[in-house]
Amino acid sequence: MKAEIIAVGTELLLGQILNTNAQYLSQELAGMGIDVYFQTVVGDNMERLRHAIEHAAQRADILLLTGGIGPTQDDLTKDALGAVLGRSLHIDQQAMDQVEKFFAGRGVVMTENNRRQALVIDGSTPLPNETGLAVGIAIAQNDRFYIVLPGPPKEMKPMFEAQAKPWLQLHALTNELPIYSKMLKFAGIGESLLEDKLLDLIQAQNDPTIAPYAKEGEVSVRISTKAKSESEAMRKLDALEEQIQKRLSQNMYASTDVPIEKVIVDMMASRGLTLSAAESCTGGLLMESITAIPGSSSMFLGGIVCYSNQMKEKLLHVPHALLEGEGAPGAVSHEVAEVLAEHVRMIADSDFGLSVTGVAGPAHSERKPVGLVYIGLAERGKQTEVFELRLSGNRDAIRIRTVKTLLYRLWQRLAA
Amino acid sequence: MKAEIIAVGTELLLGQILNTNAQYLSQELAGMGIDVYFQTVVGDNMERLRHAIEHAAQRADILLLTGGIGPTQDDLTKDALGAVLGRSLHIDQQAMDQVEKFFAGRGVVMTENNRRQALVIDGSTPLPNETGLAVGIAIAQNDRFYIVLPGPPKEMKPMFEAQAKPWLQLHALTNELPIYSKMLKFAGIGESLLEDKLLDLIQAQNDPTIAPYAKEGEVSVRISTKAKSESEAMRKLDALEEQIQKRLSQNMYASTDVPIEKVIVDMMASRGLTLSAAESCTGGLLMESITAIPGSSSMFLGGIVCYSNQMKEKLLHVPHALLEGEGAPGAVSHEVAEVLAEHVRMIADSDFGLSVTGVAGPAHSERKPVGLVYIGLAERGKQTEVFELRLSGNRDAIRIRTVKTLLYRLWQRLAA
Repeated sequence: MKAEIIAVGTELLLGQILNTNAQYLSQELAGMGIDVYFQTVVGDNMERLRHAIEHAAQRADILLLTGGIGPTQDDLTKDALGAVLGRSLHIDQQAMDQVEKFFAGRGVVMTENNRRQALVIDGSTPLPNETGLAVGIAIAQNDRFYIVLPGPPKEMKPMFEAQAKPWLQLHALTNELPIYSKMLKFAGIGESLLEDKLLDLIQAQNDPTIAPYAKEGEVSVRISTKAKSESEAMRKLDALEEQIQKRLSQNMYASTDVPIEKVIVDMMASRGLTLSAAESCTGGLLMESITAIPGSSSMFLGGIVCYSNQMKEKLLHVPHALLEGEGAPGAVSHEVAEVLAEHVRMIADSDFGLSVTGVAGPAHSERKPVGLVYIGLAERGKQTEVFELRLSGNRDAIRIRTVKTLLYRLWQRLAA
Repeated sequence: MKAEIIAVGTELLLGQILNTNAQYLSQELAGMGIDVYFQTVVGDNMERLRHAIEHAAQRADILLLTGGIGPTQDDLTKDALGAVLGRSLHIDQQAMDQVEKFFAGRGVVMTENNRRQALVIDGSTPLPNETGLAVGIAIAQNDRFYIVLPGPPKEMKPMFEAQAKPWLQLHALTNELPIYSKMLKFAGIGESLLEDKLLDLIQAQNDPTIAPYAKEGEVSVRISTKAKSESEAMRKLDALEEQIQKRLSQNMYASTDVPIEKVIVDMMASRGLTLSAAESCTGGLLMESITAIPGSSSMFLGGIVCYSNQMKEKLLHVPHALLEGEGAPGAVSHEVAEVLAEHVRMIADSDFGLSVTGVAGPAHSERKPVGLVYIGLAERGKQTEVFELRLSGNRDAIRIRTVKTLLYRLWQRLAA
């Protein structure tokens, strides 16, 4: 079964709103084992809307339309679909009662155009709107299945869940198997190297399927299979996961879609370990990433953004001789990263202390190149580790990659 | 001129990511006076990708493709467009040098598939990627204009802004009256109240046009006009800007598309003023926002993330009696916000000191409700101000709104 999602609304084409409906419906359809091959956005224009519906009906079995079913003149979705199917529209009495009751309850006179919200296509199943006024539509014709849903997500989601999904299961999905997926997450490895390490699996993939993708300094691999039951699917997915995990045990940090900082927070909190940090060029980004995770207050004690050398000396007791003067290594150095990590750990009396000092750009500093960063990892009773990074990209990219690398190193230490 | 946006990526069709690129490009194209009639999403599949490109070329003058230009086997956008245009691909040497330099700089062996990131279509203009590795493409053929951009927004946006937009202006928009826009930026006011204050102007709009946008706790208004020359356009835009500025002088912080922290950094740097901060529930987000701005090192000295009470006492000398014990106001209080702002300012010896203490959730603390936040603003030789906020939304929303409010208060003080 192939589906296509058509979102209707000029405000989407002007970029005034984000098409979150397409994301929601795509996720839902994937979960039902229905392949979405195209998503389309079209404006409130009869000719182009008809064209989009006709074109989609040539290549998909299921069409989901969202938006354009309100009371105004430019709400044309039902008219356009009716025209494509060669069917007329009529007022659904139950929907009309609901519209009238709404206005009566508010003591407001109903304007005539609100009758449009109760329109349905002849021969269709009306889909009641439990959180709004415009009625939805489900209809089958020539082995095609058409669903019309409201645009506002708070109306669209409950209608899909309670009305459209059961209708599709009953009418369109009589012979289909549901699809199950797992998301494997990796750190400390690029997309291309990861693909290289899994190339034979990817090329031989059939069932389960394997799809790698990269976002925001992280790499993920989605593995999916169709199966009669969840337990049958999990047997297949777990076996593949184990193979991948063996090859990339140094990099695979989760088998659900979570960021690495979430895994770190959970690991440390469950073991009663605590963390502190001293950041220079990342300016708080590391601590912000960790404290964005609910529950981080049980393991993260705090830290210092030591942007200026004075703050490094005053709050973190970095010896002046390391920072300035003839032959001093300077703020961006192995030595200073080490002192920062150790001192912040001692000041906070935490189990781990992290540090960052580097040149994020755009200007270089201390005659050191943009992208040169030192990160430190101190642990109570252990030798402090310092890593030298040479990163490319702009200021944002350097800051994000620095934080991701440091989180990766901390995760490695915790997972060892 | 009509444009169509084609986003390429199976992860979009599975609903794993939101198509924010389509929104961004739609806004940008609207700003250039180009009508977007369709947005399409298609998966990493050669046949369907070719079909989508061919179909779009029948109905649009300008095609913008995003995504599918990375190193892996399922990155097919350039191959598909090349096939549709009947042109071969070749390695762009400059892009290849950049890819090789990236791997050499990291001391990592480049896998062969990375060469794909340097591919361009014969006869096209390569669009350099300043924040990533995959090179973009601009090409004109048969009165159609094709642009290929990377999928990750961090790479796509700078490439569109710096490379694709000027190319389109030069090649595709030769006969159009150019459109000129100004982006007016507001803080400390919601979208609906702002719209209410400008309602008569918005309803009477004709030339220039007025379009309000809300995003990430900020409100923007784009005013646009078509004109023969920049000076003619600016006369019209400046007159409207002045009207709007008069009505919203307490909220309009810029007439270019910059975040408020950029305005603050520039104001303080140019006056030789310095800043420090003490953050509890925002965990570094405030300092991260400020240090994300290039040049912030000349005005931002540093600060402390005092997540635990111990850190508040030890590093910021908050009296124990304020934090704990019978009748103590507690960490989330007017008193503690005041002490934090004043003490961090004194420790850093900065002109201004900012502070945050509050409950970001999801759990409440100290029996205080989620969303209760105190922010402090200390200035050398002036009375410290503390504001109580009662914010709604989830943890992320509360943290972002807190930071935006504090930046707004600092801007107000500087602008007064």
